[in-house]
Order: sequence, then C-alpha cells, then structure tokens
Amino acid sequence: MPSARSDLPAWQKLTEHQRAQSRLHLRELFARDPGRFRTFSLALDGMLLDYSKQRVTVETMRLLMELARECELEAWRAQMLTGERVNASEDRAALHVALRADAPVPVEGQDVTREVTAVLADMRRFARGVRSGRARGASGRVFTDVLNLGIGGSDLGPRLACDALKHCSNAGPRAHFVSNVDGAAIAGALDRLTPATTLVVVSSKTFGTQETLANARTARAWLEKKLKDKAARHLCAVTADPARALAFGVPADRIFRTWDWVGGRYSLCSAVGLPVALAIGMERFEELRAGARAIDEHFARAPLEQNLPVVMGLLEVWNVNFLGCGARAVLPYDERLRWLPAYLQQLEMESCGKSVTRDGSRAGHATAPVTWGSAGTDGQHAYFQLLHQGTSTVPADFIACCRPHHGLRSHHQALLANFFAQTEALARGMTGEEAAAGMREQGLPEAGIRGLLPHRIFDGNRPTTSILLDELTPRALGALIALYEHKVFVQSVIWNVNAFDQWGVELGKSLAGRIVSELEGGAPVSSHDSSTNGLINHYKSRKKK
Amino acid sequence: MPSARSDLPAWQKLTEHQRAQSRLHLRELFARDPGRFRTFSLALDGMLLDYSKQRVTVETMRLLMELARECELEAWRAQMLTGERVNASEDRAALHVALRADAPVPVEGQDVTREVTAVLADMRRFARGVRSGRARGASGRVFTDVLNLGIGGSDLGPRLACDALKHCSNAGPRAHFVSNVDGAAIAGALDRLTPATTLVVVSSKTFGTQETLANARTARAWLEKKLKDKAARHLCAVTADPARALAFGVPADRIFRTWDWVGGRYSLCSAVGLPVALAIGMERFEELRAGARAIDEHFARAPLEQNLPVVMGLLEVWNVNFLGCGARAVLPYDERLRWLPAYLQQLEMESCGKSVTRDGSRAGHATAPVTWGSAGTDGQHAYFQLLHQGTSTVPADFIACCRPHHGLRSHHQALLANFFAQTEALARGMTGEEAAAGMREQGLPEAGIRGLLPHRIFDGNRPTTSILLDELTPRALGALIALYEHKVFVQSVIWNVNAFDQWGVELGKSLAGRIVSELEGGAPVSSHDSSTNGLINHYKSRKKK
Repeated sequence: MPSARSDLPAWQKLTEHQRAQSRLHLRELFARDPGRFRTFSLALDGMLLDYSKQRVTVETMRLLMELARECELEAWRAQMLTGERVNASEDRAALHVALRADAPVPVEGQDVTREVTAVLADMRRFARGVRSGRARGASGRVFTDVLNLGIGGSDLGPRLACDALKHCSNAGPRAHFVSNVDGAAIAGALDRLTPATTLVVVSSKTFGTQETLANARTARAWLEKKLKDKAARHLCAVTADPARALAFGVPADRIFRTWDWVGGRYSLCSAVGLPVALAIGMERFEELRAGARAIDEHFARAPLEQNLPVVMGLLEVWNVNFLGCGARAVLPYDERLRWLPAYLQQLEMESCGKSVTRDGSRAGHATAPVTWGSAGTDGQHAYFQLLHQGTSTVPADFIACCRPHHGLRSHHQALLANFFAQTEALARGMTGEEAAAGMREQGLPEAGIRGLLPHRIFDGNRPTTSILLDELTPRALGALIALYEHKVFVQSVIWNVNAFDQWGVELGKSLAGRIVSELEGGAPVSSHDSSTNGLINHYKSRKKK
Repeated sequence: MPSARSDLPAWQKLTEHQRAQSRLHLRELFARDPGRFRTFSLALDGMLLDYSKQRVTVETMRLLMELARECELEAWRAQMLTGERVNASEDRAALHVALRADAPVPVEGQDVTREVTAVLADMRRFARGVRSGRARGASGRVFTDVLNLGIGGSDLGPRLACDALKHCSNAGPRAHFVSNVDGAAIAGALDRLTPATTLVVVSSKTFGTQETLANARTARAWLEKKLKDKAARHLCAVTADPARALAFGVPADRIFRTWDWVGGRYSLCSAVGLPVALAIGMERFEELRAGARAIDEHFARAPLEQNLPVVMGLLEVWNVNFLGCGARAVLPYDERLRWLPAYLQQLEMESCGKSVTRDGSRAGHATAPVTWGSAGTDGQHAYFQLLHQGTSTVPADFIACCRPHHGLRSHHQALLANFFAQTEALARGMTGEEAAAGMREQGLPEAGIRGLLPHRIFDGNRPTTSILLDELTPRALGALIALYEHKVFVQSVIWNVNAFDQWGVELGKSLAGRIVSELEGGAPVSSHDSSTNGLINHYKSRKKK
C-alpha cells in the first residue's frame, strides 16, 4: 500500500470526480432522480438514515466504497472486533464491543466478557439495592441523589444517557454530574444536595485524574463533616485501579472495575454507566447495551454499501477531504439529546483529531473536522444564519424522534416541521426569482425588492444527513451511540490514524503540574515565555491573599 | 473605495506579509522579543487582554490598523454610535449602546434614552416588588421562581447572566429558561415548578415567535388549570408589540417594552434582561449595564491601536482571512460562564455569517468562522486533542477570573494552572528532541521511543487570546459582553457585511409554516423533494395516531 492516502487510486479518482461534478446542485440531483431518497437511505431497527441530501451520486458512493476497500476497512474492522491490538501506540486492544457482547470474546486466550459479566452482576445487585431502598445511607435514609464525579469519558456518556432517558424512570435517585475542577461546579452541586441522602460515584480509570480527585476530596470532606466516620458508606468508585480507590476510602464492595482495554470515550457500556443503572435502572441500562450490540452486529456483518456506520464515516471523509469542509454540526431536534453534541465532540475529535498516521508519518490530508452543535430549534434563532448564508459550508446531522414521551402534540408537530424544513431549505436554497416573487407577493415595491434581493437569496446545496428514530428508548440511544462509535472508527481507518490513543492531551497536563506549584507564594514567575509569565504574575497580583 | 475588500492596498499587503512570515513560530517570536507580552497586551478596568500568543508581529498589527482605516472603521463606528441607519437592509439604526447610555442619544430629533429610562424605572419597581415579596401571586404566595420563555436573543443573554451571576444574590426567585419548542423542554420545566409561586415572562420582540408562543400557551394553560381566571397575574411580557401581549392576556402594567432598533442578540441591556433584575436584582442589572457602558465609551474613544474590541476584531480577521482558520473556540475557564460560548455563537455567527456585502455584492472573502467551545477544564478531556494535534488550526479565546466567589482555593489554583498551561502548550508545542528527552527521563527503551515519538510531538504555534478578569462581577460581565459586541461590529466593517440583519433565518421559517399543516392527517405528502417527502411520510407512519 502506498504510504500517503492521497496516492491511492480511489482517492485520486474521488478528487477527479469531485472536480467533474462540483457544479452539481442538490436541487438538480433531486430533480433528475425521483428515486433519490430510496437510493440514499437505509433503515435499521427503528432508525432511518437519510443521506440523500448529501452531495453525492451513485458514482461518489461507489468510489468511496472503493476507497474503503483500498484502505482495507474490512480487515481493520475484523481486527478491532476480534481484540487485536489496534491501539498500537499504547499496545492495546480496543474492546468496547466486548462490553456489550453476548458471546465470548477471546483475547489472547482469555474470554474478556467473563469479567464484564461479573462486573455487570455487581452493578445490578448494587443498583437494585439502591433503587429499592435496601441499600441506604449511613443514617438509614434512602439515597435520593447520585453525584457522579468524573471528566471526559467518565462524565459525558452517563451524563448524556441519564439526561436522555430521564423519562424512562419515575423512581430511583436523581443523577447529578460534576466534571470541571472549577470549584464553582462542585460547590454549586453540594449546595443543592444533602450528605445523608447522597451517593457519590468517583469515576476515573486511573483513579488519578486531577479534576476528579480534587472534586472527590471536596465531596468526601463534605460527607465527613456530617456523617463522620460513616462517610465511606456514601462512596463508590468506577476504576481500573481498585487499590487506589481503596486507599481513598471506598469500601471494597463498592468498587466497580473498568479495564485498560476500553478508552474513556468508548466506555459508557462498562461500569462507567453506573449512574445510568442507579438513576434510570439496570434493566434500562441493559437495553441500552443491547441497542449498541445490535449496531455492533450490523457493523460487523452488513456489506459496506448497506452498513450505516460505514456510509456515515465515508460521507464525512467525502465532506472533509473532497468538499473541504472543516466543521460538522450535530443538531438533535430533541431536548433530551442536548448532551449529544458534547458527547460526540469528545468521541470524534479525541479519536481522529490527529496529524500523524499509525505508522508515524505526517498525514497528507485533513482529519477530524470540528464537531459542534446544540439541540434544535434553538440554533435556528442563533447560528443557523451562518449555516444558511455563511461563506463556508458546514454539513450537519439532523436527529429527531417520531414519537415523543410527552403529550404535547402540537409542540412535537412544530418541532418536526422545523426539522424537515431546515434540511429542505439547506438543500434547495432559494433562487433570486423565487425570492423576488415572494417579496412581490408580500407587496414590496420594486425598488425595495432590488435592494433586498441579494440578501434574500440562499445558495442551498448545503449537505445534511437526517436520522429519524421511532422513539428515544434506551435501546435506540445505545444504537445511536454505537453508530457514531463505528462511524468514527471507519474514518480513522480511511485517515490512517489510531482512533484509540490521545497523546495530544499530555503536554498541557504536564505543564499544568509544574505551574500549580508556581502559583503558590508571592514571588514573580519567570520560567515561561513572557506571555505565560505575564499572565501568571498578573493573576498572582490580583488573587485573594 | 474599490468594491472588493481583497483589492484594498492593506489587504494585499497583509496577504504578502503573511506569505513572508508564514514560517515564523510563536516560540521564535517570544525568544526574539522579551517584551512581547508588554507590547501585545492591554488592560482596562479589571480586565487584561493578552494577545501576544496570536501569530502577529508589530508589522501585522500596523497593517491590520491600516486595513481598518481603509475600511473606514472610525466613520462606521461613529455612525453606529450616533444612531444612523447602519442596518441598511432593514432601514434601521442599531442602538444597543443607547440601552446603557447615561447621556441623551438623539436619533432623528428624538432622545431614545428617555424611553429606555422609563422602561428601566418600570422594571425596577416591578423587580423590587417581586424580590421583596410585595408583588405576589394570585393566591398570595411569594414568587419563588421565574420562568423565562424566549428563544435566541430573548433567551441566551438573560440565561447567561442569571447563571453567571447567581453568586451575586442570595434572595429573590430562581430563574428558569425554556427556549426550544420541543415539548420535552416545557414539560420538564413545568414538572419542577408550582403555578402558585411561578412568574412567567414571555419574551418576544414581535410577540409572534412560534416557539415562544407555543411555550407561552402551554404555560398559560398550566397556570389556568390551578389559578383559573387569576392566571394572568402570573404573566408578564417583554415585547415591542404590547398590543399582542395584551391580547394574549398579559396585564398592561406587566408589559415591558423593547424596540425595533435593538436586535435580539444585542438586547440584554433592555427589558430582555428582566429575569436578571428579578432573580439577581435590579442593582446588579444596573451594574451590568454600567460595565457595558464603560466598554462603549472605551470603544468610542480609544485610539484603534489601544482599543480592545478593535484589536480583537482585527485579530479574528487576521486568523480567518490570512491564516485561513474556519473556526474559533471560546473557552471560559469558569463554570459560571458556561453559557458564554452559546451566547457568542449567536452574537458572532448571526451577525457575520453572511456571504453578501452591504452593497449586495458577493463577498470575495471568508466571513464569520464557526464559534464553538465550552467551559474548561472539561474540554481538555474531550476535544483538546484536536486543538493540540489536529490538522487544522483553531484559534481560541481563553477566559478566566483571578478571584473566585467560593472558598475552594486549591480548586481555583488547579483551574488557573490548567488555563496558563494550555495556552503555553498550544503556543510552544513540544519538539521531537524535547519529547524524546521526556520519554528517556521516564525510562522508556529507545525502540519504544522511536515508535512513539511522532505521536508525541506537538507543532505548537496555535494562536490564543487570554482574557483575565479580576472577578466575575455584574460589571465585568457587562463589559465582557460589550467587548464581544463591538469586536463583532469591527469584523462586520472589515468584512463589509451588515451585522444587524439576519435574512438567512427566513426561508426555514416559511417552509416550516407550510409543513406543519402537512403533518396533520394521514395522506402521504409529495410536494417536496423525495428526501423531504420520504422523511415526512416516514414520520407520519411512525408517529402516535
């Protein structure tokens, strides 16, 4: 295989193909082919994926599949799924699929699912105890609140799931999340909670994450102030390093294991999901895992052309590397999925935000774009101006559910009407003739129309993917998450980067460790560049003595 | 003046200049000039702006100022500040500065600040009544909660301010915000509230915003169910169309006026800030306005070279148009400012996300980049991988406060250490020699070092601006907001776009209006492209009958 992706025959054909069809407009593509929606949509298990509003033709998809095969996507997929050490820079497998497997996954002679099953059984017992009121706090009171302390992968997954699935449970404790080391976060959360009825989950793979440990110490002190030596009964831990959790004071039977072979951003289906089991229920958590498993099986077996994560990953490659898009918006038209953009920011940018390929050479192509967005319809009154008329094209994923959990029918109709209208408007745009006709209809004088016209034209041709879920069940959420996990893996294979390491976070961490001691004491600092020195010394002069 | 910005002499000089110095690294710039921090930082009224980690030299700044003058920034500034119709496409002035002026602002013979003062007096009276418990609900109970119903500019400003300044008030009602038309949002909020103690603010300039009115009707029905014909005593309105608010059932003395000459995204200092006055206090709201006013005065008078919003706006132009950056991150290292990125997304992308210049011709240059981000340190464990090692350069604004409002000192030191470390790491990076030395220190074998090395190199040279506030007071927040408002105005002048219209939101709105009626009934829809038809019909087949 040639070392640069751009040397691959399919890459070159795609470049050529893009050039040849660059003037094609989505409006035209739809006009030409009345079957376009059927050709470019896939359905699976309560989920519809419509990518017919992406700027692709049958030929584009054929070439993208060719690219996938030249990049040996199928072989990489098999390696990932069978526990080979696809995370080469850390010499590890990436076994998030084993977390939800229902058949043994033998890795180097060992079936890793055994350990998974054992931890799940512990979680089940514990979650049932807490939710039923059998497992209580030190003073005999039921746990009404769970406070999860974790950051990144130990925060975003359970935060997303607890928020998205709140409607699936009307019993059990409420879940709260604190991630930021900023004292405002933990102080604010503790203000709203009562030690006697709060269960604290300390979630950190290494049990050494600076932010999480700082928050855990503050929470422990808060518990101890009221509960004295019984505070430990309000602590539990999720970690790959039980000894450190034990040393921190977490009772041994409240430590739930995770493993080196699952990266934080892929770990929701492990014990990292404990807050979900506690606040929403273990059965619902199992359903979420089953939904993810269904997508794992689909990803493993479906031919590339009908494979949802493969199609989605390749579309991103098309948009980034051939259409030149540097950002992609994630727009859930569902308030319950408001944490999805943040969740995907980590999943996508931490997995593929890299400039060096697996073999250590410079990637000669763009990798992860910026992932951003928020729950609709809010964005329509904020940044959609740029999506419609900005100078750059920002592809977007629109996500909605057909059936809401509430009875406010007119709200849901309005929400979905906006969902459909936005993807239509982004694709077709509005021509000068249409805009002028509309203004004439409104009775504007011709002079006014002339002046306004250029501002009221929409170029359109802005690509979107629509995902419609029948309903936001735990199963559907699990499927959605696994869909994006594998989509990201597909991209990582095409871009030839390791989706499972994250060396880019190390430098800041080590510099922060050095600076923290420099912030003590009054002496001015001079060991950095003049900006960093200047900022630190300004801070030292201003902070409370 | 030539019609295309790129024809301007300064633009061409900047292009040339960028080419000539494109290999310069921030590391080198700091090494060369020990006074760099002093040269490229500005202080004002409890705020430090350090832009020495931007990829600029003295010559860059000189040329940017030249560009500003060629674009007649000073004349445009004067026009905006004196109430000329700078919003040409809507034939209006943009008078957000008048909202906080303490001297008359005569516009076409009328002093608009008179009306502003009158509304403020009404707000003061009302807020004091509610906060003191004099103004009560229909059943004689004190208002413990305020629910703001608004979207976009009628939501994000008060949401940001109420959240950021919560620590400034320990009395008065709690503020809640619902913007999304998704029924999950309003249903969730009403579930947590009690009609007898809830005051509902309906905030809509036209009093016709689809989302806001849907939420207002649902909230009114919820009030009426409990309070019967006294529900109106729990309603108030913020609008430029009092007649419609009156018709909706809001008592006349509870309608607070806004005006056509303030755009939603610039309106926090108007009655749109009512939730701030209610939940945080009118005095604090006045301080916020005073902070904004201080920046208005600075923007109006300071020479361009020492003018904070001018410098910030020109730096964005430099990054977007000469360094080719398509996105900018906003990273408040302060949990209290977690809504700032969303607030700035609207302010920046709705103001400058345009492809057509004021005179109706195509902009030959890029305009607003994608604004995104979240409160630090969370992002470090999520998307910072891409900021450090991704293939594209994403400039970032880092914002922090020297003094926290809480007593968790070690948390704040850790937070600030990370803040300083990240901007340092992004600027300097880590060379291969440094990375190898570090690994040797950790005792890694040479073979391992060789394999890992490429993954552990950081290119650095990634530009950031640091803003350090002494403290997050209402005044500082007002200043911060005005700083960004004028920064955006500066960009709009250079990019030659109208910062105060938003035609790009109209098309989706009108299409949604049509689709909403199509969603009723069972007949399949065929009036759109096959994708939109397919999605609508899929939804119709899946939704609850």
